[in-house]
Amino acid sequence: MRIAVLGGDGFVGWPTCLHLSELGHEVHIVDNLSRRWIDTELGVQSLTPMDSIQERCRIWHEVTGRRLHFHLLDLAEDYERVKHWLAEHKPDAVIHFAEQRAAPYSMKSDRHKTYTVDNNVRATHNLLAALVETGIDAHLIHLGTMGVYGYSSVGAPIPEGYLDVEIDTPSGKKAQEILYPTRPGSVYHMTKSLDQILFQFYAQNDGLRITDLHQGIVWGTHTDQTRRHEQLINRFDYDGDYGTVLNRFLIQAAIGHPLTVHGTGGQTRAFIHIQDSVRCIELALGEAPKQGDRVRIFNQMTETHRVRDLAELVARLSGAKVANLPNPRKEAAENDLIVKNDQFRALGLDPITLQDGLLEEVVEVARKYAHRVDRSRVPAVSGWTRELGAAVERDPEGRALRSAS
Amino acid sequence: MRIAVLGGDGFVGWPTCLHLSELGHEVHIVDNLSRRWIDTELGVQSLTPMDSIQERCRIWHEVTGRRLHFHLLDLAEDYERVKHWLAEHKPDAVIHFAEQRAAPYSMKSDRHKTYTVDNNVRATHNLLAALVETGIDAHLIHLGTMGVYGYSSVGAPIPEGYLDVEIDTPSGKKAQEILYPTRPGSVYHMTKSLDQILFQFYAQNDGLRITDLHQGIVWGTHTDQTRRHEQLINRFDYDGDYGTVLNRFLIQAAIGHPLTVHGTGGQTRAFIHIQDSVRCIELALGEAPKQGDRVRIFNQMTETHRVRDLAELVARLSGAKVANLPNPRKEAAENDLIVKNDQFRALGLDPITLQDGLLEEVVEVARKYAHRVDRSRVPAVSGWTRELGAAVERDPEGRALRSAS
Ligand SMILES: NC(=O)c1ccc[n+]([C@@H]2O[C@H](COP(=O)([O-])OP(=O)(O)OC[C@H]3O[C@@H](n4cnc5c(N)ncnc54)[C@H](O)[C@@H]3O)[C@@H](O)[C@H]2O)c1
Ligand SMILES: NC(=O)c1ccc[n+]([C@@H]2O[C@H](COP(=O)([O-])OP(=O)(O)OC[C@H]3O[C@@H](n4cnc5c(N)ncnc54)[C@H](O)[C@@H]3O)[C@@H](O)[C@H]2O)c1
Repeated sequence: MRIAVLGGDGFVGWPTCLHLSELGHEVHIVDNLSRRWIDTELGVQSLTPMDSIQERCRIWHEVTGRRLHFHLLDLAEDYERVKHWLAEHKPDAVIHFAEQRAAPYSMKSDRHKTYTVDNNVRATHNLLAALVETGIDAHLIHLGTMGVYGYSSVGAPIPEGYLDVEIDTPSGKKAQEILYPTRPGSVYHMTKSLDQILFQFYAQNDGLRITDLHQGIVWGTHTDQTRRHEQLINRFDYDGDYGTVLNRFLIQAAIGHPLTVHGTGGQTRAFIHIQDSVRCIELALGEAPKQGDRVRIFNQMTETHRVRDLAELVARLSGAKVANLPNPRKEAAENDLIVKNDQFRALGLDPITLQDGLLEEVVEVARKYAHRVDRSRVPAVSGWTRELGAAVERDPEGRALRSAS
Repeated sequence: MRIAVLGGDGFVGWPTCLHLSELGHEVHIVDNLSRRWIDTELGVQSLTPMDSIQERCRIWHEVTGRRLHFHLLDLAEDYERVKHWLAEHKPDAVIHFAEQRAAPYSMKSDRHKTYTVDNNVRATHNLLAALVETGIDAHLIHLGTMGVYGYSSVGAPIPEGYLDVEIDTPSGKKAQEILYPTRPGSVYHMTKSLDQILFQFYAQNDGLRITDLHQGIVWGTHTDQTRRHEQLINRFDYDGDYGTVLNRFLIQAAIGHPLTVHGTGGQTRAFIHIQDSVRCIELALGEAPKQGDRVRIFNQMTETHRVRDLAELVARLSGAKVANLPNPRKEAAENDLIVKNDQFRALGLDPITLQDGLLEEVVEVARKYAHRVDRSRVPAVSGWTRELGAAVERDPEGRALRSAS
C-alpha cells in the first residue's frame, strides 16, 4: 500500500513509519516540523538525541535498504498545497497524527489555545475537504484520544465510541446508539471532540472511509525498529508540557527527582505501550470500513491505572520519593475508569503490560541520557484556569519554578 | 446595558441592534462586512436597497436621536484586535451573529467549505478565549440553529438542547441528561455543532455565562424599527444561496416565477418571524445564566411546516405555480418535526404566525422591489455531494442555469 503518515516526524508517527516500511508499504511522511519548533519555543529538547527527519530517513535506508519519503507540508495553513499533494500521490491510506497534542501546552495562554484550535481543526478539516475534492478513496485513520470521553464515567465501562441509550417517546421507550457524549477536559482534548463531528459529517455526506482511534497515554520509547540503530531512536518528551505521566515518572526516577503527583493522584488513566500503539495501527489498516459505513471507532489502550499507583510502582522499582503537588487541572480528584478494547483484542492484539520489564528499559534509556535533562523543565506549569494558573510560582521571566505548595 | 452585537450588519443582527437601541441600550455593532463582500462574489444584491452600515447608523440617529457605534473588525482573522476591543469596551452582553450562515454557500466548493469552517470556528473560539483572557464577565448570547439536531427525529419532540436518556450500567439503568446528539446536514450546520462543544467547555472550565439560541428559519423583513425610515430597511436575500425557503417562495410569487420545491417537499422545517426573533433576543438578555451554570439552550422558533405545504399556501395566496426539482441536499425525503419552545413561551413570547397578514407584507415588499431581481439567481445551485452537484446544469462560466430535471 502507498501510505501517507501525517505527523510522521512525531513520537508515535515516527515508529509507525518504520513499522509500516518494514512491512513493505510505501511510506510518505508529511510533517510541518512544528513539534520541533515548539521544542525551540519552550527551550526543551527530546531526552534522546533526535536527528533531523531527513537524516533519520537516510539511516533507515542505510540499515534496511527501504526508502521513506519526507514532504514538508503544513496541513492547516495551506489547503491548496494539501489538495495538490494528495492528487499527486494518491495514497491508499492516510494516517493522521498531525495535531498539537499536549493538553498542558494547549492551556498555557490564549495564544496556545487559539493555536491549538486553529491548527487541529484546520488540519483535519482541510484533509477531509481535500479527500472529497480530489475524489481519493483512501482509508483515513485518525489518532483521537480517550480524553474525549471525559473522565467522569457514568458508572458503566466506556464503550468504543458509541453508546447505547434509551429515549422516552410518546410511543414508549426507544433504543438508540449515539456518539458517546463528549466532555473534553482541555482545549487539546476539545479539538479531538470537534474532529469527531467532522468525521461523522464527512463519512455520512461523502462516504469517506474513516477509522478514529481513541488512544490512551502512550508510554515507552523503543519499538523493534527504533532499536536497530542509535540514530533511529524515538523522541522522548519529559517536560511538563509534552511529557506524559508514566514516562515523566520514569525520568524523574532516573535523575533522582521526586515523582510529582498532582492532587491526590486518584485520577485513573488509560495506557498503551508504543510498540502496541504501532501494532494497533497495522491492525486498523487491515480493517478498512466500506463507503457509507459510519466512522469506525476503536479504543486503543491496554490497561488503566491510578496515577498514584503508578507513582508507587515506579518508586518501588527505583527508590524514588513521591511528592504531592496541587493539581493544575480542573477535574475530579478521584475517578474510576473501565474501558472496552474488545475490537483490537479480537483482531489479535496481545498487550504489553507494565510488568514486562519494559519499565526497566525506559529507566535505562533515561539514565543513559540523564545528562541531557534540564531539571527546571520537569514540573507541569500550565494552570487550567486563571486561578489555578496563579497558584504556580514563577521566576522574573514568567517561567514557572515549581508548583506552589 | 452596553451590548456588543457581533454581525450587527446582517439580516437578523441589524433589526436586533435597532430594537435594543430603542430599548435604551448602548449598542456597539462589530462586523467585518464579509456578507456584503459575498454579495459581490456571488453577483447578487439584497432585494431591498441597503445603505452602508455607516449611513444606516446615521439615519437611525436622525430618526431617533440614538447612537449606534460601528466597529469594523474581523473576529476570525485577528485574535489580538478582538481581545483589545473587548478590553477597551467591556460589554455587559455580547450577541454573536457573526458567522457564515448559508448551508448552500457552505457546500458550493471546497473553498467555501474551508472558509465556512475557518471563519465560524475561529470567530467563536477567538471570542471565547478573549473573554477568558480579559476576564470580562459578559453574558454571551449565540445564534445557533435548529439544524444541529438533524432532521431525523427519534420520534419524540425535540427538547431544548439537552436530552434525557437512560444508560445500562452494571448496577441497573441510570438516567442522564446529555447534549442532544448532533447530526448536522451541511458544513454550515456542522460549524454550529462544533460551536456547541466550544461553549460546553468554556462554560465548564472558565465559568463563562453562555446562552445558545437554536433558531429556526427566519422569515419576513420588517420590524417595528425598520419600518420607520426607507433607509433603515432590512436586507432581503432571495438568491439560491442565502434566500431561505419561505422568503424565496414569496419573492418567486411576486415576480411570477414558479415556486421551486426540492424533492417531494416533504421536509419539515421550523420557522420564526424576524420580529419574534428580535424579541427572543431581548427575552434571552433578561435571563443571564450565573457563573458555573451549564450553557442555557433555547429553541427559538414558533411553528413548523412542511415545505410543500408552505408552497401551497403561497400559491393559493398569489396564484403562483409550484415546480418540483431534484433535491440537491443529502437528506431524508420526508420527515416529521415537533419542537419544544416552552422556555420562550414561559417568558411571554406571543408568536406571530403565518396567517397574520405578514405574508402579504412580504409580498408587497417583494413587488415593490421586483425590478431589482436577477431571475437567474433564484434557483438553488449547490450540490451536497459531487454526484448531486453534477446534476445541476451550468452555463459556460460554470454558473448554474436551473436545476436539471
Ligand atoms: N502521545 C500520546 O500519549 C498520545 C495519546 C493519545 C493520542 N495521541 C495522538 O496521537 C497523535 C500523535 O501523537 P504524538 O505523541 O506522536 O505527537 P507529536 O507532537 O510527537 O507528533 C505530532 C506531529 O504532527 C506534526 N504536526 C502538527 N501539526 C501539523 C500540521 N498542521 N501540519 C503538518 N504536521 C503537523 C508535528 O510536527 C509532529 O511531528 C496526536 O494526534 C495525538 O493527539 C497521542
Ligand atoms: N437567517 C436565518 O434564517 C437564520 C436561522 C437560524 C440561525 N441563524 C443564525 O443567526 C445568525 C445571523 O444570521 P443572519 O441571517 O443575520 O446572517 P447574515 O449573514 O445576514 O449576518 C451575519 C453577519 O456576520 C458578519 N460576519 C461573518 N463573519 C464575521 C467575522 N469573522 N467577523 C465579523 N463579522 C462577521 C457578516 O458580515 C454579516 O453581517 C447566524 O449565526 C445564523 O447562523 C440565522
